[in-house]
Amino acid sequence: MALLTKAPRGTQDMLPADSGRWQYLEETARAVAKACGFREIRFPTFEHTELFARGVGDTTDVVQKEMYTFEDKSGRSITLRPEGTAGTVRAVIEHGLLGEALPLKVYYLPSCFRYEKPQAGRLREFHQFGCEMFGSKGPASDAEVIGLAAQLFEELGIGNLSLEINSIGCPECRAAYHKALREYFEARRDQLCETCLGRLEKNPMRILDCKNPECAQIAAGAPVVLDYLCQECAGHFEGLKACLAAMGLAYTVNPRIVRGLDYYTRTVFEFVSQNIGAQGTVCGGGRYDGLVKMLGGPDTPALGFAIGLERLLLVMDQCGAAFPEERGCDLYIGSMGEAAALQAFQLAEALRREGVYAEFDSMGRSVKAQMKYADKIGARYSMILGENELAEGTAQLKNMKTGAQTAIRLDDSAVGALSDTVFFEGYEITEEEH
Amino acid sequence: MALLTKAPRGTQDMLPADSGRWQYLEETARAVAKACGFREIRFPTFEHTELFARGVGDTTDVVQKEMYTFEDKSGRSITLRPEGTAGTVRAVIEHGLLGEALPLKVYYLPSCFRYEKPQAGRLREFHQFGCEMFGSKGPASDAEVIGLAAQLFEELGIGNLSLEINSIGCPECRAAYHKALREYFEARRDQLCETCLGRLEKNPMRILDCKNPECAQIAAGAPVVLDYLCQECAGHFEGLKACLAAMGLAYTVNPRIVRGLDYYTRTVFEFVSQNIGAQGTVCGGGRYDGLVKMLGGPDTPALGFAIGLERLLLVMDQCGAAFPEERGCDLYIGSMGEAAALQAFQLAEALRREGVYAEFDSMGRSVKAQMKYADKIGARYSMILGENELAEGTAQLKNMKTGAQTAIRLDDSAVGALSDTVFFEGYEITEEEH
Repeated sequence: MALLTKAPRGTQDMLPADSGRWQYLEETARAVAKACGFREIRFPTFEHTELFARGVGDTTDVVQKEMYTFEDKSGRSITLRPEGTAGTVRAVIEHGLLGEALPLKVYYLPSCFRYEKPQAGRLREFHQFGCEMFGSKGPASDAEVIGLAAQLFEELGIGNLSLEINSIGCPECRAAYHKALREYFEARRDQLCETCLGRLEKNPMRILDCKNPECAQIAAGAPVVLDYLCQECAGHFEGLKACLAAMGLAYTVNPRIVRGLDYYTRTVFEFVSQNIGAQGTVCGGGRYDGLVKMLGGPDTPALGFAIGLERLLLVMDQCGAAFPEERGCDLYIGSMGEAAALQAFQLAEALRREGVYAEFDSMGRSVKAQMKYADKIGARYSMILGENELAEGTAQLKNMKTGAQTAIRLDDSAVGALSDTVFFEGYEITEEEH
Repeated sequence: MALLTKAPRGTQDMLPADSGRWQYLEETARAVAKACGFREIRFPTFEHTELFARGVGDTTDVVQKEMYTFEDKSGRSITLRPEGTAGTVRAVIEHGLLGEALPLKVYYLPSCFRYEKPQAGRLREFHQFGCEMFGSKGPASDAEVIGLAAQLFEELGIGNLSLEINSIGCPECRAAYHKALREYFEARRDQLCETCLGRLEKNPMRILDCKNPECAQIAAGAPVVLDYLCQECAGHFEGLKACLAAMGLAYTVNPRIVRGLDYYTRTVFEFVSQNIGAQGTVCGGGRYDGLVKMLGGPDTPALGFAIGLERLLLVMDQCGAAFPEERGCDLYIGSMGEAAALQAFQLAEALRREGVYAEFDSMGRSVKAQMKYADKIGARYSMILGENELAEGTAQLKNMKTGAQTAIRLDDSAVGALSDTVFFEGYEITEEEH
């Protein structure tokens, strides 16, 4: 029975009391993306395993250790998406979207899957907001996607994230850098962990990412890629800084941010919180000019980022960001007796069709218990129908806050009169949402 | 390479050009659910396999043939959700939500997974809108959830669905019915398919669902459960009809709708389209008063429905239902020369922060090509910045439809002036969304 009544380890339900927070997060992300010209894309929950092996990189921890991979009934290997970029690129290639007017700008809001040790802000099924942009190679696009993330944080009232940027150059300038890195680490190879010894051959930049404290200490003194940029890459990085300055976005250059896979190029960036501990990166992104071609598409510059929504919620809570209050019940229509109950039901249903959340008793409760329930669900107005009300054709509408009462005629005019009072007077006009 | 660039069979991408339709569908469903007091719940993409074996029923096709079941890295059997009710009930029990004020009313909008032969309106990863209600046993609740579905179809402009209802009684009255069914089918067992012979022992009601034409023909003459209802169940069914009549919802009683699992009770219903062929059921639901207890929770009446969103879109297309037009680009800011490009970028970014979708050239195009692009993305206004404009500190804002021009001063007032014109004059005030 234990298995029946427990969600799998590392997964989380979103309960009715919490789902409003998620809706707010997602609606805000959608609105910001829309204002920046990004449109939504969705891709399947699982893809052919080959896609991630190639698109995420088969030397990564994600692919080597963390994927939910299995065979479907036809014996084909499929994998639950561990991130969103590979699926986006696959979809964009498959449907020929890169042949249309460029740049192509898309966003997504999926859940992703990694078999990791669950901890605060890190789940096995987690949620992302990601943006990807295809076709533009200039640094203004790098600033544009960074600006989108910054705008989202601003809209959500998160003020304490720092933007860190770096450039990891192109494959050309990276050849010289790899050489320097190899020389540096070769001279210290007896202090490296076993994994890093393997990395030394295949991809020395990944040593810079090692979480082993000894490796990290050695990495701290390693040559930095910024000193090895070719002229074009250096120019791109300067261009990015100029655009960020024009937008008034503060940043620091952090040469320790790397993405050790060949198809990542030039700009990499992170938004980091100092408040949520070691897992401080809320948003990570950068250019991947080599990925589209590597996955079989036309040679197309591209870039993007992903934000972990569980971590974002942690950050919002920590910095006291506000969530909008949820709208509760507009009107509770209590009743006494069967005929009145049917009329309460009928009236409530008619009001709901007008968008008014009216509630009636579906539990066969006493009037006293009904009013207690009305309180519990935060009803702003209430009305009780009994034999007298039905006989007289009038009932009293009560404002639950002020106690003020209004007579309502129980005829064809009731729905209009109630919805006018209960719905429109109940809310201040809010600023039109953009 | 073929595997890299193809989504798995039976799955579908939602491309940017289409995602607006899905957003509209989901937003409308959320709004209707909200007006009826249902709040969102989300559950993991996969659950312990045991949950579905029990909660969906291990004699069903879904569990026997169609589930995506695999072992995770700890060797535990998990299954991608084939539907939403089981996960909802598990979450509701696990988090003790049935101990709070009842009724509990929740909705969900997940994708679900069934390994079936893909065809129009039937995918291996498909999308559902589902509602579930816990705690109330009266027929008004049955009418309430049916009314919610009907309201959604109405809001979406779908007029041609017919509501079909039935009652399959409770375990008590079903004992007598099973006996009659067994007698009927025993007398005709040589005409039944092999699967149905098995069903004859375990659960004769499932024969009524058989797709084999011969079995279907025999089933057509079988006793109907309505004739075997106990007094309470018959009263419940009459109560439901009275509520539907009070709401003005037309229905037909279709004794052929059954759900052959023991925890389904009393009301079952479908909304059926005559327009999309054999797979005509757009919405199916009913009571499952026995399920919560069977999954380890407190004995709690419950009911709900699920709507297949792929099929719903098919129906909408077939009956010519309208989708809202998507908002395109508000303002394209073209530029000539590097200084102007940076200013165009800066202005566009500032406008986006006001919720205005302003676009700039990120492709290094000529002004002519820029204006062609502006047309392609449906820009309603445009403005071009060049050396002259920068020197004079003014540029012409052009309404792309009327050709009318307005001078805009390129100083601190520009963002305010542009957003006033481009955003607020660009839209009529629409009716407040409920």
